[in-house]
Amino acid sequence: MEEAVKRILNNVKEGKIDVDEAVKQLKLYPFEDLGYAKIDHHRKVRQGVGEVIFAQNKTPYQIKGILESLTRNNAENIIITRLNEEAADYLKDKADIHYYKEAKIAIVNEKKYDEPFGSIVIATGGTSDMPVSEEAAVTAEALGNRVTRLYDVGVAGIHRLLSNYNELADARVVIAVAGMEGALASVIGGLVDCPVIAVPTSVGYGANFGGLSALLSMLNSCASGVSVVNIDNGFGAGFLANMINRMESCK
Amino acid sequence: MEEAVKRILNNVKEGKIDVDEAVKQLKLYPFEDLGYAKIDHHRKVRQGVGEVIFAQNKTPYQIKGILESLTRNNAENIIITRLNEEAADYLKDKADIHYYKEAKIAIVNEKKYDEPFGSIVIATGGTSDMPVSEEAAVTAEALGNRVTRLYDVGVAGIHRLLSNYNELADARVVIAVAGMEGALASVIGGLVDCPVIAVPTSVGYGANFGGLSALLSMLNSCASGVSVVNIDNGFGAGFLANMINRMESCK
Amino acid sequence: MEEAVKRILNNVKEGKIDVDEAVKQLKLYPFEDLGYAKIDHHRKVRQGVGEVIFAQNKTPYQIKGILESLTRNNAENIIITRLNEEAADYLKDKADIHYYKEAKIAIVNEKKYDEPFGSIVIATGGTSDMPVSEEAAVTAEALGNRVTRLYDVGVAGIHRLLSNYNELADARVVIAVAGMEGALASVIGGLVDCPVIAVPTSVGYGANFGGLSALLSMLNSCASGVSVVNIDNGFGAGFLANMINRMESCK
Amino acid sequence: MEEAVKRILNNVKEGKIDVDEAVKQLKLYPFEDLGYAKIDHHRKVRQGVGEVIFAQNKTPYQIKGILESLTRNNAENIIITRLNEEAADYLKDKADIHYYKEAKIAIVNEKKYDEPFGSIVIATGGTSDMPVSEEAAVTAEALGNRVTRLYDVGVAGIHRLLSNYNELADARVVIAVAGMEGALASVIGGLVDCPVIAVPTSVGYGANFGGLSALLSMLNSCASGVSVVNIDNGFGAGFLANMINRMESCK
Amino acid sequence: MEEAVKRILNNVKEGKIDVDEAVKQLKLYPFEDLGYAKIDHHRKVRQGVGEVIFAQNKTPYQIKGILESLTRNNAENIIITRLNEEAADYLKDKADIHYYKEAKIAIVNEKKYDEPFGSIVIATGGTSDMPVSEEAAVTAEALGNRVTRLYDVGVAGIHRLLSNYNELADARVVIAVAGMEGALASVIGGLVDCPVIAVPTSVGYGANFGGLSALLSMLNSCASGVSVVNIDNGFGAGFLANMINRMESCK
Amino acid sequence: MEEAVKRILNNVKEGKIDVDEAVKQLKLYPFEDLGYAKIDHHRKVRQGVGEVIFAQNKTPYQIKGILESLTRNNAENIIITRLNEEAADYLKDKADIHYYKEAKIAIVNEKKYDEPFGSIVIATGGTSDMPVSEEAAVTAEALGNRVTRLYDVGVAGIHRLLSNYNELADARVVIAVAGMEGALASVIGGLVDCPVIAVPTSVGYGANFGGLSALLSMLNSCASGVSVVNIDNGFGAGFLANMINRMESCK
Amino acid sequence: MEEAVKRILNNVKEGKIDVDEAVKQLKLYPFEDLGYAKIDHHRKVRQGVGEVIFAQNKTPYQIKGILESLTRNNAENIIITRLNEEAADYLKDKADIHYYKEAKIAIVNEKKYDEPFGSIVIATGGTSDMPVSEEAAVTAEALGNRVTRLYDVGVAGIHRLLSNYNELADARVVIAVAGMEGALASVIGGLVDCPVIAVPTSVGYGANFGGLSALLSMLNSCASGVSVVNIDNGFGAGFLANMINRMESCK
Amino acid sequence: MEEAVKRILNNVKEGKIDVDEAVKQLKLYPFEDLGYAKIDHHRKVRQGVGEVIFAQNKTPYQIKGILESLTRNNAENIIITRLNEEAADYLKDKADIHYYKEAKIAIVNEKKYDEPFGSIVIATGGTSDMPVSEEAAVTAEALGNRVTRLYDVGVAGIHRLLSNYNELADARVVIAVAGMEGALASVIGGLVDCPVIAVPTSVGYGANFGGLSALLSMLNSCASGVSVVNIDNGFGAGFLANMINRMESCK
Repeated sequence: MEEAVKRILNNVKEGKIDVDEAVKQLKLYPFEDLGYAKIDHHRKVRQGVGEVIFAQNKTPYQIKGILESLTRNNAENIIITRLNEEAADYLKDKADIHYYKEAKIAIVNEKKYDEPFGSIVIATGGTSDMPVSEEAAVTAEALGNRVTRLYDVGVAGIHRLLSNYNELADARVVIAVAGMEGALASVIGGLVDCPVIAVPTSVGYGANFGGLSALLSMLNSCASGVSVVNIDNGFGAGFLANMINRMESCK
Repeated sequence: MEEAVKRILNNVKEGKIDVDEAVKQLKLYPFEDLGYAKIDHHRKVRQGVGEVIFAQNKTPYQIKGILESLTRNNAENIIITRLNEEAADYLKDKADIHYYKEAKIAIVNEKKYDEPFGSIVIATGGTSDMPVSEEAAVTAEALGNRVTRLYDVGVAGIHRLLSNYNELADARVVIAVAGMEGALASVIGGLVDCPVIAVPTSVGYGANFGGLSALLSMLNSCASGVSVVNIDNGFGAGFLANMINRMESCK
Repeated sequence: MEEAVKRILNNVKEGKIDVDEAVKQLKLYPFEDLGYAKIDHHRKVRQGVGEVIFAQNKTPYQIKGILESLTRNNAENIIITRLNEEAADYLKDKADIHYYKEAKIAIVNEKKYDEPFGSIVIATGGTSDMPVSEEAAVTAEALGNRVTRLYDVGVAGIHRLLSNYNELADARVVIAVAGMEGALASVIGGLVDCPVIAVPTSVGYGANFGGLSALLSMLNSCASGVSVVNIDNGFGAGFLANMINRMESCK
Repeated sequence: MEEAVKRILNNVKEGKIDVDEAVKQLKLYPFEDLGYAKIDHHRKVRQGVGEVIFAQNKTPYQIKGILESLTRNNAENIIITRLNEEAADYLKDKADIHYYKEAKIAIVNEKKYDEPFGSIVIATGGTSDMPVSEEAAVTAEALGNRVTRLYDVGVAGIHRLLSNYNELADARVVIAVAGMEGALASVIGGLVDCPVIAVPTSVGYGANFGGLSALLSMLNSCASGVSVVNIDNGFGAGFLANMINRMESCK
Repeated sequence: MEEAVKRILNNVKEGKIDVDEAVKQLKLYPFEDLGYAKIDHHRKVRQGVGEVIFAQNKTPYQIKGILESLTRNNAENIIITRLNEEAADYLKDKADIHYYKEAKIAIVNEKKYDEPFGSIVIATGGTSDMPVSEEAAVTAEALGNRVTRLYDVGVAGIHRLLSNYNELADARVVIAVAGMEGALASVIGGLVDCPVIAVPTSVGYGANFGGLSALLSMLNSCASGVSVVNIDNGFGAGFLANMINRMESCK
Repeated sequence: MEEAVKRILNNVKEGKIDVDEAVKQLKLYPFEDLGYAKIDHHRKVRQGVGEVIFAQNKTPYQIKGILESLTRNNAENIIITRLNEEAADYLKDKADIHYYKEAKIAIVNEKKYDEPFGSIVIATGGTSDMPVSEEAAVTAEALGNRVTRLYDVGVAGIHRLLSNYNELADARVVIAVAGMEGALASVIGGLVDCPVIAVPTSVGYGANFGGLSALLSMLNSCASGVSVVNIDNGFGAGFLANMINRMESCK
Repeated sequence: MEEAVKRILNNVKEGKIDVDEAVKQLKLYPFEDLGYAKIDHHRKVRQGVGEVIFAQNKTPYQIKGILESLTRNNAENIIITRLNEEAADYLKDKADIHYYKEAKIAIVNEKKYDEPFGSIVIATGGTSDMPVSEEAAVTAEALGNRVTRLYDVGVAGIHRLLSNYNELADARVVIAVAGMEGALASVIGGLVDCPVIAVPTSVGYGANFGGLSALLSMLNSCASGVSVVNIDNGFGAGFLANMINRMESCK
Repeated sequence: MEEAVKRILNNVKEGKIDVDEAVKQLKLYPFEDLGYAKIDHHRKVRQGVGEVIFAQNKTPYQIKGILESLTRNNAENIIITRLNEEAADYLKDKADIHYYKEAKIAIVNEKKYDEPFGSIVIATGGTSDMPVSEEAAVTAEALGNRVTRLYDVGVAGIHRLLSNYNELADARVVIAVAGMEGALASVIGGLVDCPVIAVPTSVGYGANFGGLSALLSMLNSCASGVSVVNIDNGFGAGFLANMINRMESCK
């Protein structure tokens, strides 16, 4: 791994490639092989944020191993998602962890931001959508964004949403989290002129079919500027919102 | 058939059963057998409206046969639904028909109502939902109701719906017709305090899956007072709206 | 919140708007924000019944918070649905609660009605559909309606249903609750001339697919006057039945 | 092929195997290979009826080839199902054919039965189910059964079905053909004490999903004695009904 | 209830109706109402077998109540299906019960048959299908039939099935029980000339989707004489097999 | 409509509200009612782009009507999507139209941009995805963006994609258009650090099920920064890409 | 493109890399860009067979362009799949084409093999599966394999399959093509000890759902050694069979 | 059983059939009947590997019985799949067992191979796919193959896969195991020229629907040479890979 990086940097030094080229090459290369996982230390270069650990279906022992590999070079704000309480307890002594229970996220070596960046609004249809919206919110905050929460503003009481029109209008990105009929994304999409990331949740019962109703509803949104992530994928929404929020003016 | 009716009426005359009992018995009885169809002349007694002919999958010849049976005793405002233009042309000389092209409905022996009854509001998400909403509207009008149309008031431009709040607030029943994400039913359901009949339409493409997205969305509505009929079933919605609109005060 | 209401009322006082207009405006406005929930104190104005708490996926602590907000102004007959026994136990000391175990509903500050209103008939296909039908029945009764239960009258023994024809014929609304093949709605729909609300249940096994068979069956009902709510949605059916039962004669 | 048969018969002659054994062996053996099809001349031995040609997805030329192979030894009452009118026209001169247009069945070398056997009742939910029910009826008649047709007796007008209770009670087998909600099978299943073969049809629209609603409904029937064949499979129902109708008393 | 029966019998006595008519009338009438269940004492008249109790989703207390109603007139061989061990234990002292653990069936007041009737063959694809096949077998035996079990004869080892050809050839009805690809029904359907009742099971994993693969496979069987019951519905298959096995020669 | 706007502007003039507030209010208001459609002249204010006409399921006559309303005030670059050739021909004389045949888009009063903005890369899995990708490309270009097309770079020949790594690395937004297994979005998502908009197409056959395979694949992408729009929704992707591309640096 | 190849070859020449390494590098590189398609001239190196053109959803003009690119260096036996007759006619003068009508395949610059290789058996359930099986057969033959066709050997007449046991036992690979219940793959899988490639077809009707029944059936096969390709994907099966048939003994 | 074998061998001895014929006949015959299972002692002859026990849904007692039957003649390397830890504990004293915990496989009478055969590469998309890939790996190793594991090489970090290109290029068969979007199979399929067996896993959440997304994705692979086994079917993949790896050069 080291070699690959050295070779690239030497090429820069010797004028064979320029810096832009080197950055591109670095983005494609190195990772560390733990056997059960291949850790990608250069992801921060490639995608602008450090490695994220998706804990679901991994043993606590595997998570610990990945964590050790990542923290060897003092990485900060490592995000562990879908981490249940038992695994969080197991990791507590092994690393400097802040566990967000409702979001089921742990932040390792957390470093709070003095001035959170831009403005992401997260709106939910109902109280029951909070675990998913908190996953989005904690993710976005751990990546340095300012997050405004508008919870329980579902479309069946449209006045609750409209009375928060100002917050929506000021957002650079909106994340709309809703289960059941998932109509929140369309209504918000029609009100704002920034990108709306729709997160269907599996909240509901009966013909909800595990989030299918909200998913299909959001994919069929008649509002423009709306795109959809997987059911209950709060992390994905928070991550993408960070990307968009950090866009700079085109040169 | 005649016999059955006579026996019941004689029983009344002889005091064996009272009038209420007779009406109930009459509701259960007679029909005329054409071989390919059994015509139900007493449906008007039983359900308050005359026979309706569902033309889809019937040959023009079969429709004509049923029509002759029904018109033998001068029935008025017979409704033929899902009637394509070819079949309508075929029937033109055989009966006194008014064909509503967009609704694909023919009214036979049409009798206009001087004072249409109550107030049914029919709202649609978009222009493309008109064939279904017109099926509902023409049905409701043929049964004597006053119908107000609010078309193209989909939730992605919520101000178009809110600016018609007065019409909605005055309705005795609302029919919400929408395809794609079907959110209209929920938003209206949260604004009004009367029953809302939701009609999913097959308008859309892709993950719409023939109306499935709107159907699931409407079934999962978080607004109370909303119930759903089959995809594209404008007739069913118009018929049910008539029933509810004509409810009288409880004695 | 207060301000909004005052402004509207002042407008009435000063003759700027008339009373009808004021009522409409009031329906659109105020709610109280608990952070995780936005309580809608004017829902009674807007929809004719007080706030209902959907307890599923809410923590007992959240339910208590919502309850405190609602009972501050002595609301009666608050309905809490989908409340499991543990949560009901937790709430017992905190409020004046009557818990209906089979229906999984709690009524807070219950006030029995001296003369229940009109007539709603609730019919079920089998004994196993009782949790859903009781949810409908207790809801309707808490809203002041007279409810007649016809249980275990499934279509495979059609004589059990027909022998109760009188109760059906006297109903102003019928709720048909059935799992498996869900045919009860169609058969009842053909017998009565009042609206039928069909509730598919998830009772069954195999190709029942969690209530899908009954749901599709009811949506495809060939009887007119039938509409459908979500699988197992007894509350929704009871609420809508109340709305229809309370319809007054059109002026 | 001939050889195989001879060897078996010789074995009988020489007393090596008895007649029962020979019949069993014959059932397993011979067919004629046309390349694109393998004709099964002994199916009549094995299954009690002659070869049936399923014409759908076969070219008229292939059908003719199979027919020639079958008619070489003067087979009677050969059934060709799913035969469209064009193919029927093509075959007209090539064989002695009676084409039943509504059933889309051709009978080759038809031999009418003097005394049709037993009693099969075929009931349909509506007029539109006739193509499927006629496929069942013509099949059963071609195999020598007496068939009673009860058409348009759907459950939404239960009195139409009950008024034919006598025919149902006299049946040895009932075929219930219905689309939409498919409830007919359950209601009939509860009325009779003979086997009921349920045939879901693709008649309907919207959430019918090509017959899925009726199929699931029939599979979930709460009536005992009901089994189901494929959507629109009138032939399969007629064939099975023949098998059951011809059952003899157990020795 | 008594009255209804008396009136019919008196009519016979007085010559107003003949015996056949009386039997038909009796089949339509009486049941006993327990509130949560309506017991059908004349089902034996109507369907040839006594009441069957489907225990799934019923409380032990409800089952006991139904049982007491049925045993009041010394009914024998009452079948309770889908009865778990706990409920069976609860009922043990309250009635004379024989519990078949693998089949999850209890027979109340069991009366063994001296000479079981006819011949029903039950074949399974694999060992794992036994709970379903035993439900079918115990049901059929409780109704007095002779049952031959051919277990683990799945199509992936076709010689295991063919080596049992004699048993299959002697059957009056075959029940084919299989999960996974469900091909057993087609292969058997091609070998025998008696009705085949196919029972898909939920045995399998992955793209089995809870029995859907076997269900679709069996519905699409290219063999004639095959019909299908619900996934895992061993009882339904055993009940129908009894009906067919008991068919008498047509008069 | 005019009034509403005037009132807002007067409020600004009189210092009652400041300009930011006025802009927000303007976003919520006016539209023109054609009966079958409600034209939203202020959408440009609200969403940054002018009205777009979705032509599918609209009659040419309706499209013309909407167009006349929009062009009354000389709007430029109006986008008509899903416009078939017949309708395009009909509109040719009625407006100044440039029809993009492969994209099925017409641009009315087209105004070419001197310097297209930023950089959107559109990649497709195969040649057959071109109609959808062109819908995205023409949309994005009509809104003023610079678009780079990378066509036929599907993952089964990964070197074709990697050899275009430079274009991908320079993009501000990538639109990944793919049918069949839809893997393109994940692979690109892992290579770039900008938002990826995934568009599943209905290209394929068999278990593609109308685009379902690509849709599910994209929703389940293990790459971060990927979100999904409806099947074949090239317009939606182009519109959203424009929004993101135009993001300015956060103040 | 040329350059890339030259560099690799020079490296070999100069001893920098050995031949094995060079072959691997060559497999990753060059293609020709037509704009709408990227032609992969080295696929023959990489996958052992030349480019294949999937014609479905491509215009005749695009196919011609791709063909010209491929034939520039005298490629032989180019396979064009899913080519309809019209497109085949269009290409007739532009290239040396042999069109296989039933298989919908054209072979360009066909070169017949003197001694076809190994042994691939292709078995079908019925006559209607021939278009798919011929696609597999013609593909395999164009790649130089000896193909034996066993058509119409479906499992409902198991003796037709067993009587061809010798051909099956001699195969190196078997392709099992079947629609409806798709059981052929399991039965063959249990008879042979070589790989079985299962091809579900969309042949059937009703609950076949476009090939879903056969697909699920084959995926759930209880026979080992069976794998599945997409519905109707005859080409894929023929291609994979060629790969396996050409396997050489392991060194 | 013995008899059948003797007869065949005698026929060889007496020159009635030659050895090849005898082998074929032996493949069709004998098994041992345990009642609940039919043990197939000649499967090794027929399919080249010994009996495999699928433990899921079998009781420990049944597994033990099958095991005793198989080990009576000292069979080696018997594979028991889907064996949970409890059952493995129960069997420990009853047989010589090596239990692979992650793969949930037990090998009975394990005999390690001195020189594992050929080369099978098993690649997984992520750490969570390990239970399935280990089922494949342990199966293939127990059958004597050399297995190379490439774990966590999912397509979202394509460089992790490409850096292992050498191992892939040297493989005789590749097994691609992936959940979520299942794109790994397509990417590998485009890189190698040997057969690729794709195993979709149920790893994921939301719109993964129990592995459906990966399954559909893999079936729709645009790479040639890819075939698919059931969701999570590691055993089936390992077994088929063994078959292909052991192919010998065609004579």
